[in-house]
Amino acid sequence: MAAAPVPALDAAALARLADETVDHRFKGLPPDAAGTTVGALAAEHRNLFTGGFTTPVLALSAERLEHNLAAMETYTARHGLAFAPHGKTPMAPQLFARQLDRGAWGITFAVPHQVRVARAFGVPRIFLANELVDAPALRWLARELDADPDFRFVCYVDSVRGAGLMDEALRAAGARRPVDVVVELGAGDGARTGVRTEAECAEVADAVAAAPTLRLVGVAGYEGEVPDADYGRVTAWLRRLTALAADFDAAGRFADAGEIVLSAGGSAWFDAVAEVFAELPDLSSPVLKLLRSGAYVSHDDGHYREITPFNRVPGEGGLQPAFTLWAQVVSRPAPDQAFLNAGKRDAAYDLHLPMPHTVRDRAGEVRDAKGVTVTGLSDQHAWLRTDEGVGLEVGEWVGLGLSHPCTIFDKWQLIPVAEADGTVVDYIRTFF
Amino acid sequence: MAAAPVPALDAAALARLADETVDHRFKGLPPDAAGTTVGALAAEHRNLFTGGFTTPVLALSAERLEHNLAAMETYTARHGLAFAPHGKTPMAPQLFARQLDRGAWGITFAVPHQVRVARAFGVPRIFLANELVDAPALRWLARELDADPDFRFVCYVDSVRGAGLMDEALRAAGARRPVDVVVELGAGDGARTGVRTEAECAEVADAVAAAPTLRLVGVAGYEGEVPDADYGRVTAWLRRLTALAADFDAAGRFADAGEIVLSAGGSAWFDAVAEVFAELPDLSSPVLKLLRSGAYVSHDDGHYREITPFNRVPGEGGLQPAFTLWAQVVSRPAPDQAFLNAGKRDAAYDLHLPMPHTVRDRAGEVRDAKGVTVTGLSDQHAWLRTDEGVGLEVGEWVGLGLSHPCTIFDKWQLIPVAEADGTVVDYIRTFF
Repeated sequence: MAAAPVPALDAAALARLADETVDHRFKGLPPDAAGTTVGALAAEHRNLFTGGFTTPVLALSAERLEHNLAAMETYTARHGLAFAPHGKTPMAPQLFARQLDRGAWGITFAVPHQVRVARAFGVPRIFLANELVDAPALRWLARELDADPDFRFVCYVDSVRGAGLMDEALRAAGARRPVDVVVELGAGDGARTGVRTEAECAEVADAVAAAPTLRLVGVAGYEGEVPDADYGRVTAWLRRLTALAADFDAAGRFADAGEIVLSAGGSAWFDAVAEVFAELPDLSSPVLKLLRSGAYVSHDDGHYREITPFNRVPGEGGLQPAFTLWAQVVSRPAPDQAFLNAGKRDAAYDLHLPMPHTVRDRAGEVRDAKGVTVTGLSDQHAWLRTDEGVGLEVGEWVGLGLSHPCTIFDKWQLIPVAEADGTVVDYIRTFF
Repeated sequence: MAAAPVPALDAAALARLADETVDHRFKGLPPDAAGTTVGALAAEHRNLFTGGFTTPVLALSAERLEHNLAAMETYTARHGLAFAPHGKTPMAPQLFARQLDRGAWGITFAVPHQVRVARAFGVPRIFLANELVDAPALRWLARELDADPDFRFVCYVDSVRGAGLMDEALRAAGARRPVDVVVELGAGDGARTGVRTEAECAEVADAVAAAPTLRLVGVAGYEGEVPDADYGRVTAWLRRLTALAADFDAAGRFADAGEIVLSAGGSAWFDAVAEVFAELPDLSSPVLKLLRSGAYVSHDDGHYREITPFNRVPGEGGLQPAFTLWAQVVSRPAPDQAFLNAGKRDAAYDLHLPMPHTVRDRAGEVRDAKGVTVTGLSDQHAWLRTDEGVGLEVGEWVGLGLSHPCTIFDKWQLIPVAEADGTVVDYIRTFF
């Protein structure tokens, strides 16, 4: 089911990002641009390699970013899925705007702080894929909902106690509009958050029904945490989720919902989500089938390259790794050792170490980084092993592929977007 | 040797930190404080637990921070060491100011971006404990040195090629003041950056002498990377370093230095540095014996708790872990499982997982977190295992000890400083 058109983000707030001053807050940017604005610097179309940028510098590929945005727009449209890409990954309002322009229903987040960032830029529809029992955050949310009748917000609830705490905080805040919630079904024994059994789901739904500040609008979960996940186990769990939706509907639990929300889907199993959600029988109200994949926007050279569903269904499209971290060789103390000036402060390291793919010499000549391996990261250094005969020299730049978008984006507050020839056409601001 | 008094930081730049608006950029801060300034919020003296802060929120202990600042001031003064605490750890100008007020010679950094942050706040003396061959960064540095005759800057050089690249970039920049460099002696075969042999050190020193834009002022290194480090191996390497200083001095290599710089010392072996540096014979010029420990400022509950030299010399003082990350239980899906709303985005995880030490219930009653263990981190969740009978409930706050200051500070841009009773007396701004 295609989502209805979404109001645009707050154009003035987005425009203010271009008015920010380029200064010491933003690593990697040209020191000689200090004092100009981000917008003016973007208009200069500097070259990433020759335009005065300092190392290390993280860059997004303009073409690959565009490719990835288009790929998931096409995929979700083809499968009748509404899309709320997980915004925790980039935390970048400029990317939220591009996702919404491409038909996304809204944006997903993980914690209330992220929702505050989104609301500062006018994101009109938010799915909070987490429990929310923080009283000051609920007070803020109640104010935000009451101040803007067009703000649509949905979050998880996975316990009777949690529903009670939400109700208590929302009552204390004098909330006028009820908060829409979905019961989170856990992905199995030992999995992450979420109710473990259907019987307990009914108890939680009863608690929601008893809370005047809450409204039950659906069910949701995260198939990425199915224990020992494979396609069979993931689809089996997804069928538990759709059956729960149908059972709740048959029991009249969504009578006040208007639209029923059914949501799942990270970046590893969206093909399974598409398959199982398509099987859902008609319910008593229209169903918003909401996919939440977030990592696709940059994709990566490690974890998501290995697990993307497009490996199973290559005919349906594909994603391209859009990040390169450029660092400089600062030391070559032994024939088999070299060191770059980028480390844990700059690169993701939770799932894989960075993967050198390119060496760029001082004349701008580019060669393959064959025989160069990252063996470890210090806070501010990468340790490289070089195979015998590999001629890596102090001063050269090494292009590194990275793994796990969520721990790449969060190390950079202003990220140049460069075309294939190095022309920087934009800067993406993040808020972590 | 005590360092000469240092000019104060740029008071106006520091004051502007208090003028910053509290908004969506700063996670954990009270949503109802949005729009006020950091200074005005600090003056409110809100309570961390009842003042509207949202979870997760990282806090620094006011008393422990003060204790740690005093402890290293006392230690370095007692041992006649000048002190340039490593600023890469906190990247917080307010802490640099307190370190300089307590007699630090200057501040150490790892990469030029950090030097730019420091100079934006007027740090007058900077030791860059890294090689620097980045041409745009050297151009910026040359401008900064030429514009401020009181700016003292020293950095590493560890290769003939590196010295040549520095000279080339500084000439191209039209640098007027030479850049002071120290030859970095590597900590052994297979260690990190730094020249491997004394013979190669002499070659690098020759290259520096031949470069009109560079001035050799000393030798330095990092004993924290001595392979299979123990006290004997570390002191043996430190004696290589002091011998190198004496040999270079005898050879007349520091004739232009005025003051000779000898530097080592992270947070694991400063007792060994104090011992060996005290043995240095008189050289031809005064010697600045520069210790660079940085992690002491917050200390931690893991890595540095285990390896601090004060474990060997408890009579000389001690450090106290100053960070607590407060997160909220959002899910309790099984008797042995609970989930907090803090994850890789909020907590260090490179050396140890967070360690729960305190549970705070909704009435403000505090109990020990015995029987509660963090078993893993997702991006935005901590996975807890609870022992049988441990009564942890949704809505409660858990206080987590963390390990490795460098990967704690960098996840928070504005950190409340709270007294023992929760009164927040200040906010520390970081720049990563």
